[in-house]
Amino acid sequence: MAGIEAIDKLSNELSRLPGIGKKTAQRLAFHIVGLPEEQVRELAVAIYNGKKNVHLCPVCYNLTDKDVCSVCGDDARDKSVICVVKDARDVNALERVRDYNGLYHVLGGVISPMDGVGPDDIRIRELLSRLASGEVKEVVLATNPDVEGEATASYLSRLIKPMGIKVTRIAHGVPVGGELEYTDEITLMRAFEGRREV
Amino acid sequence: MAGIEAIDKLSNELSRLPGIGKKTAQRLAFHIVGLPEEQVRELAVAIYNGKKNVHLCPVCYNLTDKDVCSVCGDDARDKSVICVVKDARDVNALERVRDYNGLYHVLGGVISPMDGVGPDDIRIRELLSRLASGEVKEVVLATNPDVEGEATASYLSRLIKPMGIKVTRIAHGVPVGGELEYTDEITLMRAFEGRREV
Repeated sequence: MAGIEAIDKLSNELSRLPGIGKKTAQRLAFHIVGLPEEQVRELAVAIYNGKKNVHLCPVCYNLTDKDVCSVCGDDARDKSVICVVKDARDVNALERVRDYNGLYHVLGGVISPMDGVGPDDIRIRELLSRLASGEVKEVVLATNPDVEGEATASYLSRLIKPMGIKVTRIAHGVPVGGELEYTDEITLMRAFEGRREV
Repeated sequence: MAGIEAIDKLSNELSRLPGIGKKTAQRLAFHIVGLPEEQVRELAVAIYNGKKNVHLCPVCYNLTDKDVCSVCGDDARDKSVICVVKDARDVNALERVRDYNGLYHVLGGVISPMDGVGPDDIRIRELLSRLASGEVKEVVLATNPDVEGEATASYLSRLIKPMGIKVTRIAHGVPVGGELEYTDEITLMRAFEGRREV
């Protein structure tokens, strides 16, 4: 505690962010107090606007600050392929590769009985209703290659295959136990190329 | 880049903070977007208020959100001792010890010809005018034990001693809990020089 209320309050708020401990929070707080007023205002506004202007895309549940997200709103994207991911960070990671040209579906989680997350708690129903239109020819399951991600993928594959839609799983080019978000572009590309029907 | 303007803007602003790289900034940005609106508002307000409400104490140049800082405003503090430090973070560190009961003087930097910082660029004049009142009996030089900190300390000591004021320097040595084996030579040398009869 710095004994200065405004700095303590700031450091407390910062220490609630992931990966920011008490010491780092205090260092950042002192740094922020020493910044030019203009830059501090920009930071505060960016934080507030980030939250206020960003919402879920009503089609694929990716994050967006438009009506629909930049992927769903792009007419050049192949609407016959949907890549299913756990969250918006994964869309972001896959989009960096600039290789995949289909659409996405963001589940908003994975099935995890340990954490009390069942199939009804993630956006599986929404995925199925997108598939019902008949336009989609392939679903790429791109959940993380960990226990919950695999379980979710196999659950989805059992649901979707009977609809006559091709279901593929990204290859295990992504290191087992790793996370899409932190995987380098080349590995992600390989994983995409090596996807196989399941 | 997430391709979502509000998130890219936020991650850019965050990556300007010290110790926050591009990846961490993006992870934090996604995290912030996912937080409850109330918490995001609190964070933004804390940042803005931290800057707006905190200014320099007109006496010692410590940071404060009051008229004078909590140390200068405390009548129980010993006004005959002034501890000279580089910046407000150092006051904060020393106050955590709850051992020192005198006042402070924050220089706002140290003399560093390499960085173009001379004696007139830090608050030495302000220190001398505080000493002119005759109330101060001891000045403790607590700048960091690095090249610039030592140079600043010896410069100050040459200025202040002729005023008939006792000038002391904080001790340097092996940190408590540290090991001789892993202590650098200069620190060991200082520890030897500063040895006292037990």
